[in-house]
Amino acid sequence: MRFGILGTGVVGRTLAARLAGLEHEVMVGTRDPAETLSLNESDRYGNPPFSSWQEEHPEVKLGTFAEAAAYGEIVVNATAGAVSLGALELAGEENLGGKVLMDISNPLDFSKGMPPTLSVSNTDSLGEQIQRRFPQAKVVKTLHTMNAYLMVDPAQLASADHTVFVGGDDAEAKATVTDLLRSFGWADIVDLGDITTARGTEMLLPVWLRLFGALQKPLFNFKIVR
Amino acid sequence: MRFGILGTGVVGRTLAARLAGLEHEVMVGTRDPAETLSLNESDRYGNPPFSSWQEEHPEVKLGTFAEAAAYGEIVVNATAGAVSLGALELAGEENLGGKVLMDISNPLDFSKGMPPTLSVSNTDSLGEQIQRRFPQAKVVKTLHTMNAYLMVDPAQLASADHTVFVGGDDAEAKATVTDLLRSFGWADIVDLGDITTARGTEMLLPVWLRLFGALQKPLFNFKIVR
Repeated sequence: MRFGILGTGVVGRTLAARLAGLEHEVMVGTRDPAETLSLNESDRYGNPPFSSWQEEHPEVKLGTFAEAAAYGEIVVNATAGAVSLGALELAGEENLGGKVLMDISNPLDFSKGMPPTLSVSNTDSLGEQIQRRFPQAKVVKTLHTMNAYLMVDPAQLASADHTVFVGGDDAEAKATVTDLLRSFGWADIVDLGDITTARGTEMLLPVWLRLFGALQKPLFNFKIVR
Repeated sequence: MRFGILGTGVVGRTLAARLAGLEHEVMVGTRDPAETLSLNESDRYGNPPFSSWQEEHPEVKLGTFAEAAAYGEIVVNATAGAVSLGALELAGEENLGGKVLMDISNPLDFSKGMPPTLSVSNTDSLGEQIQRRFPQAKVVKTLHTMNAYLMVDPAQLASADHTVFVGGDDAEAKATVTDLLRSFGWADIVDLGDITTARGTEMLLPVWLRLFGALQKPLFNFKIVR
């Protein structure tokens, strides 16, 4: 299947590499591909520039947000939450309509210091904002509640005995995403309901961040014991 | 040890019964004991009136909020979040100062329909509001992230293989609460840090409520797999 992944950061890269490894065709989208390729230093977290990463993943294409969205049969929003709506505008309504749009981002607001807060919460969510703005897209909120490496390979932790959530208004889109999650190794997939359930799952981020501080490692996850 | 439990609802009763069963001395506090005892019908959820419950737990005393707080060496806020600060005012600063104050409530706002939202979240929490208002109390936020029956008997589910959080500014108070949690059967107790971590744990409620809807049962809990 063809995937368009919006976002060239660690999350987008990790997902792109995993999908390519599963024999999918992948194009990563960015605002300005020439600028993205011109970067030649690691970022402040030590992540290498995109060009270095792409040398190791030549099968992954790079394009604009619009090119990647047009390319994908499934589109993934892996941009930072603060810029997601803008990136999706550039991706273009016409390139999103009728498609599954996996939203794996979080509305984190770093402007007020650490830990970040949420720019939207409680009575609304980024997932809903995206669905409202692009009513023809089939938004499925998923994978935003754990570290990127666990997203694509949950068996790295406790033989995948932990939970991923899906939420969205379109049952068929959720079924498609569920199949994809299973191909990553996910065994415990909880369908919470419609896209408004993104409020609850996005609100997991603050405690995730505190757990990251308390446990001093990123490879942990929520399991819903029942 | 002597406990003063503020709140005569299911949470307060469940905790009172468990503590009494562990040979602690317990007084439950309410706004108006005479009125509480005069109720003679089950509530809308089918919970029997307090007087019926107390007949089965004659060892549990009933008093005003102030009497219960004065009685307790440890005070527990088990009132509904929307009325917690008011109940604690009635309990009295002088009866809370220097004591461990376990806050097990959630700032749920039912005024806008179901599911309830949070009356405070993201940049503040009920736990912090209580700590700010009663700076001499040693507030420990805990037990507010699961059903009342699991709070006091986690082994009812998966041999207690799931998680309870503690957060608070006073290390000694957290150690006291941790010992108490162990006596209930809790094995996985995660200290997240100071009282501001209540933001994250209180924000677990929205997804808890959605899980309650999706799983159709209240006996489930978060486990932090790591």
